[in-house]
Amino acid sequence: MSGDDCLTGIRVLDLTQFEAGPSCTEALAWLGAEVVKVENPAGGDPGRAINPPPGADAHYFLQYNANKKSITLDLKSENGLALLQRLAARADVFIENFAPGAIERLGLGPAAIRAINPAIIYAQVKGFGTGSPFERNLAFDMIAQACGGTMSITGEPEGPPLKPGPTLGDTGTGMLLAISILAALYRRTRTGAGEHLEVAMQDAMFQYIRGALATQTRTGAPPRRAGAGSVLARNPPMGIYPCKGGGPNDYVYVYTSRANPEHWRRLLAVIGREDLLDDSRYATSAARAEHESEVNEMVAAWTRAHDKHEAMRIIGAAGIPAGAVLDTAELLHDPTFAARGIVQTIDHPTIGAYRMPAWPVRFSGRPPPVRPAPLLGEHTEAVLADWLGLAAAAND
Amino acid sequence: MSGDDCLTGIRVLDLTQFEAGPSCTEALAWLGAEVVKVENPAGGDPGRAINPPPGADAHYFLQYNANKKSITLDLKSENGLALLQRLAARADVFIENFAPGAIERLGLGPAAIRAINPAIIYAQVKGFGTGSPFERNLAFDMIAQACGGTMSITGEPEGPPLKPGPTLGDTGTGMLLAISILAALYRRTRTGAGEHLEVAMQDAMFQYIRGALATQTRTGAPPRRAGAGSVLARNPPMGIYPCKGGGPNDYVYVYTSRANPEHWRRLLAVIGREDLLDDSRYATSAARAEHESEVNEMVAAWTRAHDKHEAMRIIGAAGIPAGAVLDTAELLHDPTFAARGIVQTIDHPTIGAYRMPAWPVRFSGRPPPVRPAPLLGEHTEAVLADWLGLAAAAND
Repeated sequence: MSGDDCLTGIRVLDLTQFEAGPSCTEALAWLGAEVVKVENPAGGDPGRAINPPPGADAHYFLQYNANKKSITLDLKSENGLALLQRLAARADVFIENFAPGAIERLGLGPAAIRAINPAIIYAQVKGFGTGSPFERNLAFDMIAQACGGTMSITGEPEGPPLKPGPTLGDTGTGMLLAISILAALYRRTRTGAGEHLEVAMQDAMFQYIRGALATQTRTGAPPRRAGAGSVLARNPPMGIYPCKGGGPNDYVYVYTSRANPEHWRRLLAVIGREDLLDDSRYATSAARAEHESEVNEMVAAWTRAHDKHEAMRIIGAAGIPAGAVLDTAELLHDPTFAARGIVQTIDHPTIGAYRMPAWPVRFSGRPPPVRPAPLLGEHTEAVLADWLGLAAAAND
Repeated sequence: MSGDDCLTGIRVLDLTQFEAGPSCTEALAWLGAEVVKVENPAGGDPGRAINPPPGADAHYFLQYNANKKSITLDLKSENGLALLQRLAARADVFIENFAPGAIERLGLGPAAIRAINPAIIYAQVKGFGTGSPFERNLAFDMIAQACGGTMSITGEPEGPPLKPGPTLGDTGTGMLLAISILAALYRRTRTGAGEHLEVAMQDAMFQYIRGALATQTRTGAPPRRAGAGSVLARNPPMGIYPCKGGGPNDYVYVYTSRANPEHWRRLLAVIGREDLLDDSRYATSAARAEHESEVNEMVAAWTRAHDKHEAMRIIGAAGIPAGAVLDTAELLHDPTFAARGIVQTIDHPTIGAYRMPAWPVRFSGRPPPVRPAPLLGEHTEAVLADWLGLAAAAND
């Protein structure tokens, strides 16, 4: 089965924008829910306008809104608000990620919507949780990453904290909310009960830094940043080594596990340094940590003579964990991702053909199919007809 | 409702270790599934032994295995294997993350288990997906992050790629699998059908770097690393600014949105530079990008005179997004997290009391309660009795 039949019949009323909320509802859409994005008629989700091509929706928007429908409603008009309330009565899930207080000012807060539909799962994304001293503050991905600890453990040991490139504050939060929505929907098949869910982006970051929290609990102090290494232990060689080519991503990650001493011995064979097999300066992980820069230089001397793909192939084939640092071009255009359905080609009515990643989990061997993100208001008539039985003119 | 009643009655047979698999099953356990960890009698999950306190389980293990049960079975013995097969017949979910090929060598691959129990959700975590040229390779969090693109977008513009501190390759993958398992369980309430799920850690990384993939698609080239900024656009001031104190995490993140020109104007008032309100060198985001280092220095001159908490409070109160770079000690010991149930205190039989984060999504105002991770084999007799009706002696 293809996976996109899992949530057949589930209706999601989606009042989210940018990334944290949309990444959550997109996961539900990929798995078969009918996700109806409710957008203001004057431009809709501001994500549509982040560096857009002329006359079309931004690629940013396309990434986070595949497989959804879009309707436009002016929630500040009496008619728009009434329609939204009627739609909420027919929905299984209601979700929003407006700035603090905005949804209540619209009259669409959890109490109002749950009064209309007690079985609904009402889900909210906040920057800071209710009860936090900062609950009224604005938040964005990077604010959540600063206040949620991910920056404190990213960077070089002697350098300042750094922002992780992945948008964990947004998508990392969205994934946790999707899990919670699905669990509440599952319970509802048994109990019929609705739920009020709230996740704060700051709080969600804890989930992704628990190796560091374990180190904190063990040592009583915040772990030092570990660069390309691990906050759990220094364990050379373990890092990002430069490769032939000299481009910004011509590097290979090489890891020798403490748990398997053979990794180091195999690596010595690969780099032509069998002369060191019995050298006590390098025999154990602890000994290598004492000679970290020498060890790293030995590995780098070999990697610099190979391109990253070659290095990954040779080191990996010798039974040592290794990975080329791949960039977004290499990933999107690698034919093996397309063959496996992990990257799919979309045909969009105004953008044309482009590639994007699918939901990466395979159901019986294939990821669910990706369909293009909706144009603004593309499904207004169809959804109002289908959910509410309204003829085309009623939403004018 | 507390959330930990969502998955009541769901039985998960959990053959995972370290982090990618355990983070997935822990989420299911927090939400109420009965997760039974199947461990080898000779030490169990190797995560128990990552820097453990004397005579106890490692804090690393405690983080990823809360709310679970543990049974020991020797899967290489005839009796152990037979018991596992009988348990699989009673389970709703089977999950494993062994090295490639290992589960099939045990005779417990998807075909074998689905023949015993066609309605089971059989879930696997791989490093590289089936069909990848590297499908037989070993993978760890950092290999997935190298080959999945997250390192290519982390680091300073002129520097090498860097590993994000959060363990996205592990927990980031586990969260996507949890969503998929829950979706398949939901479908099963309608169809009764089982499923075979597979997620590769490399593939899962795509989900978290889609801002960069959008930039790639828009420009046709991999985005340059953006340091503390964004791959979407240069937009100063936007970054990590040094604060009073000079410690490794004495920094504050300050963001002025392109979409809201008031952020910059408000910030000028905060830093006492109203003299620049009408200065054309700084009037627009594009103009400030031309004078990036001057702009950053103006902001830093102010932040250096304030500690990070003060800086966050003052800038945030002025309506500008700002976040102190908080470290693991500050997060674990902040009383507001404990008050909200985001951090909970556990009483463990051999470790004693310690704090750890809960599932961060609140159900009707509270995260689900955290219970301690199981001791090795703590529930062997109870589970064999409950699932199979076996008396205590039968598993000797």
